[in-house]
Amino acid sequence: MKNTFGTSVSITLFGESHGPAIGAVLSGMAPGIPVDRDFIALQLSKRRPAGRISTARVEEDDFDIVSGVFNGRTTGTPITVVIPNRSVKSGDYSEISRLARPGHADYTAQLKYHGYQDYRGGGHFSGRLTAAIVAAGAIAVSALEAKGVKIGTHIKTCAGIADRDFSDIEEDIARLNGLGFAVLDGEIAQAMISEIEAAASEGDSVGGVLETAVFGIPAGVGEPFFDSVESVISHAMFSIPAVKGVQFGDGFALANMRGSIANDPFEVSDGKIITNTNRSGGVNGGISNGMPIVFSCAVKPTPSIYKPQKTVDYVSLRNAELSLKGRHDPAIIHRARVVVDSLTAIALCNLLAQRYGTDYLMPAADK
Amino acid sequence: MKNTFGTSVSITLFGESHGPAIGAVLSGMAPGIPVDRDFIALQLSKRRPAGRISTARVEEDDFDIVSGVFNGRTTGTPITVVIPNRSVKSGDYSEISRLARPGHADYTAQLKYHGYQDYRGGGHFSGRLTAAIVAAGAIAVSALEAKGVKIGTHIKTCAGIADRDFSDIEEDIARLNGLGFAVLDGEIAQAMISEIEAAASEGDSVGGVLETAVFGIPAGVGEPFFDSVESVISHAMFSIPAVKGVQFGDGFALANMRGSIANDPFEVSDGKIITNTNRSGGVNGGISNGMPIVFSCAVKPTPSIYKPQKTVDYVSLRNAELSLKGRHDPAIIHRARVVVDSLTAIALCNLLAQRYGTDYLMPAADK
Amino acid sequence: MKNTFGTSVSITLFGESHGPAIGAVLSGMAPGIPVDRDFIALQLSKRRPAGRISTARVEEDDFDIVSGVFNGRTTGTPITVVIPNRSVKSGDYSEISRLARPGHADYTAQLKYHGYQDYRGGGHFSGRLTAAIVAAGAIAVSALEAKGVKIGTHIKTCAGIADRDFSDIEEDIARLNGLGFAVLDGEIAQAMISEIEAAASEGDSVGGVLETAVFGIPAGVGEPFFDSVESVISHAMFSIPAVKGVQFGDGFALANMRGSIANDPFEVSDGKIITNTNRSGGVNGGISNGMPIVFSCAVKPTPSIYKPQKTVDYVSLRNAELSLKGRHDPAIIHRARVVVDSLTAIALCNLLAQRYGTDYLMPAADK
Amino acid sequence: MKNTFGTSVSITLFGESHGPAIGAVLSGMAPGIPVDRDFIALQLSKRRPAGRISTARVEEDDFDIVSGVFNGRTTGTPITVVIPNRSVKSGDYSEISRLARPGHADYTAQLKYHGYQDYRGGGHFSGRLTAAIVAAGAIAVSALEAKGVKIGTHIKTCAGIADRDFSDIEEDIARLNGLGFAVLDGEIAQAMISEIEAAASEGDSVGGVLETAVFGIPAGVGEPFFDSVESVISHAMFSIPAVKGVQFGDGFALANMRGSIANDPFEVSDGKIITNTNRSGGVNGGISNGMPIVFSCAVKPTPSIYKPQKTVDYVSLRNAELSLKGRHDPAIIHRARVVVDSLTAIALCNLLAQRYGTDYLMPAADK
Repeated sequence: MKNTFGTSVSITLFGESHGPAIGAVLSGMAPGIPVDRDFIALQLSKRRPAGRISTARVEEDDFDIVSGVFNGRTTGTPITVVIPNRSVKSGDYSEISRLARPGHADYTAQLKYHGYQDYRGGGHFSGRLTAAIVAAGAIAVSALEAKGVKIGTHIKTCAGIADRDFSDIEEDIARLNGLGFAVLDGEIAQAMISEIEAAASEGDSVGGVLETAVFGIPAGVGEPFFDSVESVISHAMFSIPAVKGVQFGDGFALANMRGSIANDPFEVSDGKIITNTNRSGGVNGGISNGMPIVFSCAVKPTPSIYKPQKTVDYVSLRNAELSLKGRHDPAIIHRARVVVDSLTAIALCNLLAQRYGTDYLMPAADK
Repeated sequence: MKNTFGTSVSITLFGESHGPAIGAVLSGMAPGIPVDRDFIALQLSKRRPAGRISTARVEEDDFDIVSGVFNGRTTGTPITVVIPNRSVKSGDYSEISRLARPGHADYTAQLKYHGYQDYRGGGHFSGRLTAAIVAAGAIAVSALEAKGVKIGTHIKTCAGIADRDFSDIEEDIARLNGLGFAVLDGEIAQAMISEIEAAASEGDSVGGVLETAVFGIPAGVGEPFFDSVESVISHAMFSIPAVKGVQFGDGFALANMRGSIANDPFEVSDGKIITNTNRSGGVNGGISNGMPIVFSCAVKPTPSIYKPQKTVDYVSLRNAELSLKGRHDPAIIHRARVVVDSLTAIALCNLLAQRYGTDYLMPAADK
Repeated sequence: MKNTFGTSVSITLFGESHGPAIGAVLSGMAPGIPVDRDFIALQLSKRRPAGRISTARVEEDDFDIVSGVFNGRTTGTPITVVIPNRSVKSGDYSEISRLARPGHADYTAQLKYHGYQDYRGGGHFSGRLTAAIVAAGAIAVSALEAKGVKIGTHIKTCAGIADRDFSDIEEDIARLNGLGFAVLDGEIAQAMISEIEAAASEGDSVGGVLETAVFGIPAGVGEPFFDSVESVISHAMFSIPAVKGVQFGDGFALANMRGSIANDPFEVSDGKIITNTNRSGGVNGGISNGMPIVFSCAVKPTPSIYKPQKTVDYVSLRNAELSLKGRHDPAIIHRARVVVDSLTAIALCNLLAQRYGTDYLMPAADK
Repeated sequence: MKNTFGTSVSITLFGESHGPAIGAVLSGMAPGIPVDRDFIALQLSKRRPAGRISTARVEEDDFDIVSGVFNGRTTGTPITVVIPNRSVKSGDYSEISRLARPGHADYTAQLKYHGYQDYRGGGHFSGRLTAAIVAAGAIAVSALEAKGVKIGTHIKTCAGIADRDFSDIEEDIARLNGLGFAVLDGEIAQAMISEIEAAASEGDSVGGVLETAVFGIPAGVGEPFFDSVESVISHAMFSIPAVKGVQFGDGFALANMRGSIANDPFEVSDGKIITNTNRSGGVNGGISNGMPIVFSCAVKPTPSIYKPQKTVDYVSLRNAELSLKGRHDPAIIHRARVVVDSLTAIALCNLLAQRYGTDYLMPAADK
């Protein structure tokens, strides 16, 4: 299933940056889930570029729900969201279509699709496709919230500057979901923005790390080995074009700890089993342990920069220099955050439906 | 497909640590691939515990190939490897069956399987199952080598000590595949072993980072989005019980770079397009670019340690202290390395079969 | 993958009869395949109701290709076809929404979706969704034809009247693809139409059997056991709402033969191995043998009839009588034929891509 | 997933007729299901050849459960059954390895596997592999029975002789499951056996039709379109080597009915909605309607017959005559019946787990 992720709940993604539309089919969601267009629009607004730190391409992100929703609720059949492409300036791209942008998929697309790819604006490889993930994912996010499962992501580091750690996870998630630039400490947010602007003024770009917390997933979800919670979530995360690393809990830092430190001691608290620390990120042996699921994604700096770069003309096989024009983001980490939330929600709906069946996310009154 | 990984080439894993046997079914491999029992035994020997730095449980890892091989070659039908469990001392485990080992899957298994799991020696969650991955993976490793695709993994860091970086990747891979303790610099290897022994003497354990390089994958393999090379490989890696982080190329370090540094410039060299650096780990937009594929896995310290640990009795819901007896590794990173190689080989066979069809790995003379 | 069929090439279907649109995503098709809007329109016209023997709902079947096609050719990324619903008369349906139409999915949809289903015009269960299969399938049909693989379906029986058998399969396929009412013998076609009209005049409906022949599939495609050619094609065919039986070659008639008659003798003809008869429908042991693949689908009579029928009100749990109004077909077999062709083409593209890789259907000049 | 069927519950099949063993991995079954070795042996005995109407190859069908069962119950992890091949007489086959048996997979296997296939006794294509399906399926059959779901199959026709129809389905299922030769009417059974013996005495073979009834599947299981109950079951049935047709309810006979006859009228009976007839075989719109699921499989006559047959030497490309020696069944329909039951049980466990989650089949006391 090349363009489909998930089995019990799945998303199929389609579209090109400068084609007629992009979109997604979300299949397997329970019936009866309220679908709030305003919430979808809100989620899309978090991905939309804004201000000096983003590309000048601003779109309203109109979206059409063309299937799977009736009388304001999911029907249980596939939900399709289509987002038309309106603000398209293909002229910006036509002259560079033979010069492979370093760090981008121009060259690999050429090799895979033999020149038939729609190269305009990155075509199918454009970050724009993530808008469709966000629109479909918003329905998954709402459905989970109604069951007490809450997802929040902050910019853990950006351009070398670090946000504070999660403290009270439920509160922090709530706070993050109200922010446009998702940093827990407001002053640190300003410092990050300054660094992004500094990079932008030099025609350059920055990256960062996103850290995501999920509160409320019951213990016992996921599989040993190939459908571990980590396997399923990382599979989703690594499909986001800029993500180059994924770690759970303390991740790579665990590699330098001793077992006596790395192990999360169990304890009974209010008659419930919890762990005292959460270095494992809420997953033991591939299966959720009832603690918050916590993971981080490394987001590389935006590859499209204005600084001149060495590259090749992949048709003539000659070395060349590339000076990009057009609209490009000096950072996408603040926009990627809602893409991570959305795909996480879809991955979790899939794991929950596998565990508890089709109707698990249906409003309780109707069962 | 809960216990199956891959579509065109797939592996299905089964077994419990103290049951009759463990094993794996490898399906979709091309016909005609030579199967060398000695090479399988060699690969298994790399996973086998040895010396003071490993558990005292030493098994011969006898294995039976019960299907899919005829006259010393693959038939094209499913290959099944069965490894009987012989050196089983269930007595070591019976008394602790209600005390959840911190960092292990005892508690999550209880919640998922409601007490019906085979808890002896970790049951289905035991690292022992990775022996079946290694045996099946050995066939994939050989098949790739015959096509010029070479895989090697070194211990990049262990207990805070770092190996040298890859330099000449082909040479380094060859060197690593001849080593039992896979560290490029021999002196550093000794220092790591000393640290593992130091931890062992304190009843503790250590972790580390494995870095893998793959030479010879053609450009154009993998898919944009959900079946990206990164998604497929990370899905496989996170199914290894101790892995808590996966990154491609410079991974998390990319998050702190500017785009002008992070982007790998293309250049023409000997009429071929290469990149000057390989910070992206050989993958752009989810698709291989012809450079070596390089990724790292964070391996947490072994959770089973002798030091007393706080935990709970998950039946009586009471706090408890756990003092492990039995056979446990102070480190598994040196043994996990061949598991990473094996699963990588299977994941790549899958990606290659998707791209080039069923017969791609068949010996050339027969096509 | 509830609403997706296929692995290497797949189709994802979405939409409701009276929602904004229906559509399909066709994923995994090779790049470079010419996409001819006129051919798609022609295929859609074969599914469109016409004349007295069909429903009065006539739509132009406008369709939009919103992704995956650039400069008139496939790009290799997912192709999405959206067909807006325009001629919608929901009023016809609102009053009967609690009365389960016998033979239809009203009651099972209610049980599965708990009342949240879009019941208007059959919702997601409407035969109208097959238009999206036809539009997407037209691209698969063209791609196969360019490789010499030709598909044709005739109405083998309708209302008890039988067409002549296939004789020269290539010629017969060509002939059928030029016909609106796909019967090899023109006089028999008229007799069938008379029977359909007779049933219509009594407020009743008829069914029939469709027989499909595929010429040009190479030998060696398909898998033993679970992905046999028969398993894959029947999986697709039984997803067509009215199909209740599928058989390959002589199918159920083989059950009454002796082995000496049923076996197709091999012989060498012009240096090629063929079979003298084709009772097995071109498949031995799940794998194509190079002879035409031949199979039949039993199409039940249209369940929506005007004659009064006994049924229940599934909300009040009372017996009731149902007298349907609105627009209903006295037969759909002549329209279903192109749906069978289309899904067959997609299933075969999937099998060929599994066998020969992603680029198999790409025009030869570009490889 | 070439050799795996199912998503939530799946079976992976492996082995060759004359290799060391055959077997199956059954994955996704709920924990806590009692596993009764005697019942598995009983089911295997129904598949075992017996008497004059079967091959002289009689094996004990020893089987080993090597994973997934602990203390007599399923653990929830993959269950693996291995059946060693003991009574192997490869000598019978070696001399005909280049002559393609008509109706068998010898030639297609050669084309697919390029001569590397294990040709002895049909290799992976041997009907013997169905023993592994039966052993694994026995666990699914028991699990369903504990939930009130009962499966029974009778020989509807054999050599042109028809059994009586199902009358009281629950009673008939119970009766059939106690029979070795599954025919509802004992006199008809004798007539069928006589016909099989007559064919055998002429060196020939016969086929037949198996009809299966499933009692107790709740309404609302299955999906519209691609995972319809019909699609999923037919996919499984057509993986049985000898099956060439599958129909639900009245199947092909529906094609000759009018809608007013074919539609099953709904009615309220004892406060429950049922249908008055069951021509649709318990499935409407791909979803179970609560009535018994009824379907039939056409089983072709055994292809291996003693009568001389025309064929080719597929290496020298010359016409040849084949006179089979060795052990061959004059009929397999009476043995195939338990294979149908077994695969049906696995397919239904898969559909139920998708609908109701992982634990649905766990004994009620433990939830």
